[in-house]
Amino acid sequence: MPPAHPFDDDKLKEECGVFGVVGVDNAASIVALGLHALQHRGQEAGGIVTHDFGQGFSSARRFGYVRDNFTDAETMATLPGPIGIGHVRYSTSGSKGATQIRDVQPFFGEFSMGGAAIAHNGNITNAVALRRELVGRGSIFQSSSDSECIIHLMARSMGQSIPDRMEEALRKVEGAFSVVAMTRTKLMGCRDPLGVRPLVLGKLGDGWVLASETCALDIINATFIREIEPGEMVVINADGVQSHFPFRRASPRFCIFEHVYFSRPDSILGGRSVYETRENIGRELAKESPVEADLVCPVPDSGTPAAIGYSLQSGIPYAMGIIRNQYMGRTFIEPTESIRNMGVRLKLNVNRALVKGKRIILVDDSVVRGTTSRKIKDMVLEAGAAEVHFRIASPPTAWPCFYGVDTPQREKLLAATMSEDEMRDHLGIDSLKFISLDGLYRAVGEAQGRNPKAPQYCDACFSGEYPIKPADMMDRGFEMKPAAE
Amino acid sequence: MPPAHPFDDDKLKEECGVFGVVGVDNAASIVALGLHALQHRGQEAGGIVTHDFGQGFSSARRFGYVRDNFTDAETMATLPGPIGIGHVRYSTSGSKGATQIRDVQPFFGEFSMGGAAIAHNGNITNAVALRRELVGRGSIFQSSSDSECIIHLMARSMGQSIPDRMEEALRKVEGAFSVVAMTRTKLMGCRDPLGVRPLVLGKLGDGWVLASETCALDIINATFIREIEPGEMVVINADGVQSHFPFRRASPRFCIFEHVYFSRPDSILGGRSVYETRENIGRELAKESPVEADLVCPVPDSGTPAAIGYSLQSGIPYAMGIIRNQYMGRTFIEPTESIRNMGVRLKLNVNRALVKGKRIILVDDSVVRGTTSRKIKDMVLEAGAAEVHFRIASPPTAWPCFYGVDTPQREKLLAATMSEDEMRDHLGIDSLKFISLDGLYRAVGEAQGRNPKAPQYCDACFSGEYPIKPADMMDRGFEMKPAAE
Amino acid sequence: MPPAHPFDDDKLKEECGVFGVVGVDNAASIVALGLHALQHRGQEAGGIVTHDFGQGFSSARRFGYVRDNFTDAETMATLPGPIGIGHVRYSTSGSKGATQIRDVQPFFGEFSMGGAAIAHNGNITNAVALRRELVGRGSIFQSSSDSECIIHLMARSMGQSIPDRMEEALRKVEGAFSVVAMTRTKLMGCRDPLGVRPLVLGKLGDGWVLASETCALDIINATFIREIEPGEMVVINADGVQSHFPFRRASPRFCIFEHVYFSRPDSILGGRSVYETRENIGRELAKESPVEADLVCPVPDSGTPAAIGYSLQSGIPYAMGIIRNQYMGRTFIEPTESIRNMGVRLKLNVNRALVKGKRIILVDDSVVRGTTSRKIKDMVLEAGAAEVHFRIASPPTAWPCFYGVDTPQREKLLAATMSEDEMRDHLGIDSLKFISLDGLYRAVGEAQGRNPKAPQYCDACFSGEYPIKPADMMDRGFEMKPAAE
Amino acid sequence: MPPAHPFDDDKLKEECGVFGVVGVDNAASIVALGLHALQHRGQEAGGIVTHDFGQGFSSARRFGYVRDNFTDAETMATLPGPIGIGHVRYSTSGSKGATQIRDVQPFFGEFSMGGAAIAHNGNITNAVALRRELVGRGSIFQSSSDSECIIHLMARSMGQSIPDRMEEALRKVEGAFSVVAMTRTKLMGCRDPLGVRPLVLGKLGDGWVLASETCALDIINATFIREIEPGEMVVINADGVQSHFPFRRASPRFCIFEHVYFSRPDSILGGRSVYETRENIGRELAKESPVEADLVCPVPDSGTPAAIGYSLQSGIPYAMGIIRNQYMGRTFIEPTESIRNMGVRLKLNVNRALVKGKRIILVDDSVVRGTTSRKIKDMVLEAGAAEVHFRIASPPTAWPCFYGVDTPQREKLLAATMSEDEMRDHLGIDSLKFISLDGLYRAVGEAQGRNPKAPQYCDACFSGEYPIKPADMMDRGFEMKPAAE
Repeated sequence: MPPAHPFDDDKLKEECGVFGVVGVDNAASIVALGLHALQHRGQEAGGIVTHDFGQGFSSARRFGYVRDNFTDAETMATLPGPIGIGHVRYSTSGSKGATQIRDVQPFFGEFSMGGAAIAHNGNITNAVALRRELVGRGSIFQSSSDSECIIHLMARSMGQSIPDRMEEALRKVEGAFSVVAMTRTKLMGCRDPLGVRPLVLGKLGDGWVLASETCALDIINATFIREIEPGEMVVINADGVQSHFPFRRASPRFCIFEHVYFSRPDSILGGRSVYETRENIGRELAKESPVEADLVCPVPDSGTPAAIGYSLQSGIPYAMGIIRNQYMGRTFIEPTESIRNMGVRLKLNVNRALVKGKRIILVDDSVVRGTTSRKIKDMVLEAGAAEVHFRIASPPTAWPCFYGVDTPQREKLLAATMSEDEMRDHLGIDSLKFISLDGLYRAVGEAQGRNPKAPQYCDACFSGEYPIKPADMMDRGFEMKPAAE
Repeated sequence: MPPAHPFDDDKLKEECGVFGVVGVDNAASIVALGLHALQHRGQEAGGIVTHDFGQGFSSARRFGYVRDNFTDAETMATLPGPIGIGHVRYSTSGSKGATQIRDVQPFFGEFSMGGAAIAHNGNITNAVALRRELVGRGSIFQSSSDSECIIHLMARSMGQSIPDRMEEALRKVEGAFSVVAMTRTKLMGCRDPLGVRPLVLGKLGDGWVLASETCALDIINATFIREIEPGEMVVINADGVQSHFPFRRASPRFCIFEHVYFSRPDSILGGRSVYETRENIGRELAKESPVEADLVCPVPDSGTPAAIGYSLQSGIPYAMGIIRNQYMGRTFIEPTESIRNMGVRLKLNVNRALVKGKRIILVDDSVVRGTTSRKIKDMVLEAGAAEVHFRIASPPTAWPCFYGVDTPQREKLLAATMSEDEMRDHLGIDSLKFISLDGLYRAVGEAQGRNPKAPQYCDACFSGEYPIKPADMMDRGFEMKPAAE
Repeated sequence: MPPAHPFDDDKLKEECGVFGVVGVDNAASIVALGLHALQHRGQEAGGIVTHDFGQGFSSARRFGYVRDNFTDAETMATLPGPIGIGHVRYSTSGSKGATQIRDVQPFFGEFSMGGAAIAHNGNITNAVALRRELVGRGSIFQSSSDSECIIHLMARSMGQSIPDRMEEALRKVEGAFSVVAMTRTKLMGCRDPLGVRPLVLGKLGDGWVLASETCALDIINATFIREIEPGEMVVINADGVQSHFPFRRASPRFCIFEHVYFSRPDSILGGRSVYETRENIGRELAKESPVEADLVCPVPDSGTPAAIGYSLQSGIPYAMGIIRNQYMGRTFIEPTESIRNMGVRLKLNVNRALVKGKRIILVDDSVVRGTTSRKIKDMVLEAGAAEVHFRIASPPTAWPCFYGVDTPQREKLLAATMSEDEMRDHLGIDSLKFISLDGLYRAVGEAQGRNPKAPQYCDACFSGEYPIKPADMMDRGFEMKPAAE
Repeated sequence: MPPAHPFDDDKLKEECGVFGVVGVDNAASIVALGLHALQHRGQEAGGIVTHDFGQGFSSARRFGYVRDNFTDAETMATLPGPIGIGHVRYSTSGSKGATQIRDVQPFFGEFSMGGAAIAHNGNITNAVALRRELVGRGSIFQSSSDSECIIHLMARSMGQSIPDRMEEALRKVEGAFSVVAMTRTKLMGCRDPLGVRPLVLGKLGDGWVLASETCALDIINATFIREIEPGEMVVINADGVQSHFPFRRASPRFCIFEHVYFSRPDSILGGRSVYETRENIGRELAKESPVEADLVCPVPDSGTPAAIGYSLQSGIPYAMGIIRNQYMGRTFIEPTESIRNMGVRLKLNVNRALVKGKRIILVDDSVVRGTTSRKIKDMVLEAGAAEVHFRIASPPTAWPCFYGVDTPQREKLLAATMSEDEMRDHLGIDSLKFISLDGLYRAVGEAQGRNPKAPQYCDACFSGEYPIKPADMMDRGFEMKPAAE
């Protein structure tokens, strides 16, 4: 399985994408298309559950890409019915090798009133405590996933209907969750009170769709209706969409990094084009941190819109100084005479003729460990660039995410241990500038920047201000930033 | 095997890439890296042959990508030795299903003085006649490939050394060929007298490299020495590079489409950056065919440099109006309610928020059948674009290539049956303009444009003027353009 | 996956084999060998669970043969530790297609005091009721297997140790069960009060082994210690074997069909060689149902020992009149001109030269649907046999088994709807004789034959007298034989 | 791929089986069935070639069993047409790993008058010299197989028809060959002048069949017409069978080991049932080498008919003292405490209860290296046998075969270096007796035994008298037995 992004190993990773549909002729094939459009949110594995009155619930869960697992007629024929949900995922916790197929969602449970399946994007911050209690009372967990708590809480609920049980279960859960679930006839969706992860509603003929992003509506020609609101739960069947708000209301704190990197540029978040937001970020960066140079070049592919914005604002020509290999490979045997930066060379090549003798501004979306940035700088200098300036489309990433994104431990984050200048020297480049937190807020449309008293977004990875207490992680020793800071 | 380019089915396809190395510790792993960098020249299959004095010749030939076939330690361990060659290929003749593993190069033959292997990029225009004669004399062909003639001619040669035999064989061959070959100790390379296909020489430590393009030198950190000249044959061993010119000298006619589309933008052809040439094409297009509009958008990915050039020349902002799915899939089950243009949706999505209400210039590299152009236009209009203008970075493709590129039959080429205006109406767009042939020549550096008496390049696909008589195809009924025309 | 027995589709099938070991260096490889020796008890799938203090519990479950799934170093390295259990299985309930990997045992559960795994041979006759109750209380079942009830009952138990919980769970279970289970340090085994299915104890160096049959001790050079007694539960750890009898005592009713067909001929059951028992059956048959003939031929392979016995008793020469293809295949494309009895021809061929003009006695182990018997008769007559006499090494199979054997529904059993003479005519043979029930009891060593008041064995498939009420099946409408009969 | 015979590694191996059919609706499926019946003659790989006027020649060649490769509809649909040939093979020359798919027959060549395919059972004793000459003249060999010479000789022939070319080619070939070949419309068959390997002719409806053994006719319900005679060539088309004798006539020397071991017991060779011949061998053995004992047991499975014969002649009861595991495996991870004779235990188990305290006669077909015999003796003694006597159904195998059987080098053959008594001591058994060469001849129907002046069979592996000079092997240093001896 090839990696899809050139620096998978030095990027933050969204952990999941979810999708559901009801009221269509062939739900599984629509779910497959939707998951394909959401593949950037999780490339390790995917699963689909459907229900058909002849055959009951059907399920297929596989490692690898949707296009490789859910396209053959044989597999798809095993997933009949007019309702279905699906999930794509990264591994939650570092140790990829340890992931087993039983960790792949959707999870399914048979209750006395029938079966239900759920797919979860986000992270449950009190999962360890919940699991301990459930096991103590005789529940048998099949996976190592935090998300499995939800289905066991539903199984244990005394609720008289499955939507009731889901409400009850989600009220016990803390953290970030955008959940899509199904019974035999009902499609359900719910976002946590802060709405950390996205979830949108679409209409497809007589049927309805729930998806992590609008790009998954586009691929199936569905109409984008609206976002599910923070704290909202919807139950959808033949009669239409019923909406509830089962949780105590709270101020929304949508993940600002979805705008910067996770979401696809053709998706619409909070009424804003992700592409345009990123172009704005580039413009803000150019205003905040101008520099004289000959070319603005994106680090492919995610730096592209910000680089275009930087070029438009600064008037410095935009060019593809680094070319991505369309057939990226993760592993090759290293020939004896060691090739410098071979890992990067498999994925990228510098456009030597273009770069030679030029002052280059490289625009990237973020710096995590910094390992890739160093290698790219090496290649660009080797190709004869006169100067190398980095402009980063996000503030320094200094804190781990506990709400559904796979981040290295804090001590591995370059920005957790170095100042901007130290990072510049560490990377060995002529200048390094990150967008300011206020600049980022402006780029997403907050003209006044960030409201420090009540930030409009979750920006914990930049600010260290966690809107939901990471209970399990604190039990394991994680120290939050002192409130005074 | 996923497709790598979104419109594989409506693009001309380079048929092959070749690579060879001698004098290194682990030739196979270097060949694999080189082929990986050349994967865009042939995605259907690949093969590697090496020689080691302990184990003799070793060979592995596989369908699929280099990254999937030649990266595991087990396979690579079967390919020991300090010398090796490799090949990536498309199928030569339409019927992909009919390709068998025995058609995959390099081809190998055991002669009385030892074995030799060859890999060929190009097309032999008298292969049918040669094959008929060889079979009549008792040669047994294993493949349906035109390239196999070369190894049989070598086997039949009375030459006293393998390089002698290769020279003798290639003198009997007509057409386009860039050949890389090897004996137990010697690496050989040869280009046809017109130099239709590229071939470059590089240095890697104490060893030497031959490759179709310079990007294959970059991936292994090799130094680009020079191009093999049209009509030149090199024989490389421990003592260095010996050069011969076994053919009657002729004026070079390098394939101009290598500049437009086939070669990688980071390669250097004839001393020119391919990327910059393509940006030039965009600038020429903007001069020749300006239009008022709001945005210049590339059709991903090959239209990108020309779109940037168009934007720079015209001052109209460049934007990614069409977003490519990084995880492209070729096949999905079509849901019952047919999704319009599903094939394209699997690969691309229009950036709705960006495009809505705008006048859009779409820059693409070529129009072959026109099927994809129509679908893209549909999607862009559906997303609310006010106007759609196509600008094409090559002249109308009206004639098939017989020199190593997989083209549809002439009657399937849109430009063979329609004028530019008819094509515009057929595609249903507001305007359509191709770059002129002279404009293209200017973009590749011929300030005076094309010399109609002695064209500097092979441009048969645009002009119908074939520099080498396509003998086999004429036997099958192909009619060349009347000379008077 | 090739079939292993020529008439898999017209044979009763043992559903499972179980194996466990503790106190050895590399438990998984020993479990794999044991399961290989028990493969005849279940060919559809197999699984192994081990525990190692570094790595915790490890598990691998696969469709197909042990030799294909549990022999590569890579898989076996994922199963470290000094303790392990394993299971081979047929599908329980007809619809093979429906079996999913989650139905493959051993089943595993994490309890508050640690994890446990179980493997079950037999069938739980009140599983439906138990499952309904457990689901009602919030347990989530992962499989469709009756055996999963046991692990949920254990999870729900308030017992303070895992062996206590297993005792408690098994006291709630009705039916036939030979269970092997493990904690991190303890190997456990238990047989139901009637001891319907076999389970034996062996010693291997300092370690201990539990297995369905003694042939699984032989393959690993272990010493056969004794059978686990009906109703006995053993808990084995470093200190040795502790024995309990947690159930109300009952008269044993071991499955008599294990002697006739299920068990391997080299196993020892109840102190008796299975091979010799089968030879005895042949001798009894010859006494009960002699016939003048030229040759006694087994229907390969299971009829062999009884045919030898018949020959020894009758003095009629034994010969291999039917030859089995060692490379049996289940499916081939049927050529246009339909080949008579092609399914059987793939597996068997008549020894024409031997059979021609002869009076042949064919000895088979049982008649289930009778479909295969007809085809064999056809082939033998076609080859020129003068007469064909069938002698069957079991009484007529007229009732389904509910204790762990895969039997067709009663109406599909030939003997449920026809008398012996009707069957003879239906099969179109010269004579047909089954061994009498008393004859069978004599062959297994009951000199007085069957005790009708208190049968020494479970012979429900012949007699319709079910020693354990098949509660679930009766709920589904199965009617037992009237007691008066 | 599982082994099919328990002692594959200590048995002589037939190298090939061939099959062809013409004049039927679906040749490929009939060829597949025929090859399945001939699988015992070659288990490593198989291939089928067919011809259809729409599609031309089609070919599929695969490693593994026929049942696994030529049963799916997809593969078989690629092999259309009314005529086809097929081949199953072992590797010719020890080094199994070195075999490549290009070594798998049938071989195909395109000539000026059309294509032809051939399949060869036997061994060409002057292949090295022929190959050297052909390569010197410019033929390119694709395989390392001796058989490929035939197709190159045909390609080089000036014959005006393909049958003429085949005649001419086979006249240049020395050694043992039973060849089946095809053009677009004709099926051809030929046996070498001595008729070393078998080949039979059958009739199937309006069509005709050629096969190595009659068991391949039985599986498709074809009628056995006659054997192809030594030195005969047949050409079969719509008009029927034409017969030629292109070679100088010679006294036939059919391979006597085909009777002992290679052929299937249900085949008919030279008008004799193979099974009955083997039973006769057992009777002769009992006459020549009686011994007091309690049981006669076959070494499964090939010793079975001879053991039955020995029992019938001697009156000592026949019993299955050794049970074969139906699911034989070649490899398992060896547990730490080494299991004695684990390799044999995977395949066989001693019937302990039967053998204990008994004097056992073990009947086996041959002793090659003797390694397996030792292990079996160990297991039988370990199980408590009082005495172990071996009776071998062939004379001592002291010479390698050069006519199509895979034999170890002479120095590895136990009988090449030891007398019968030394072998007995080496094996550690109570007695060891081989059948005499005369006894073997009597068993195959030569009442007077072997004619030492003009032996009726090829028995070089026993006698060292090679009827065809092994030219290539003598070039490599093999020394024949002095004529005087």
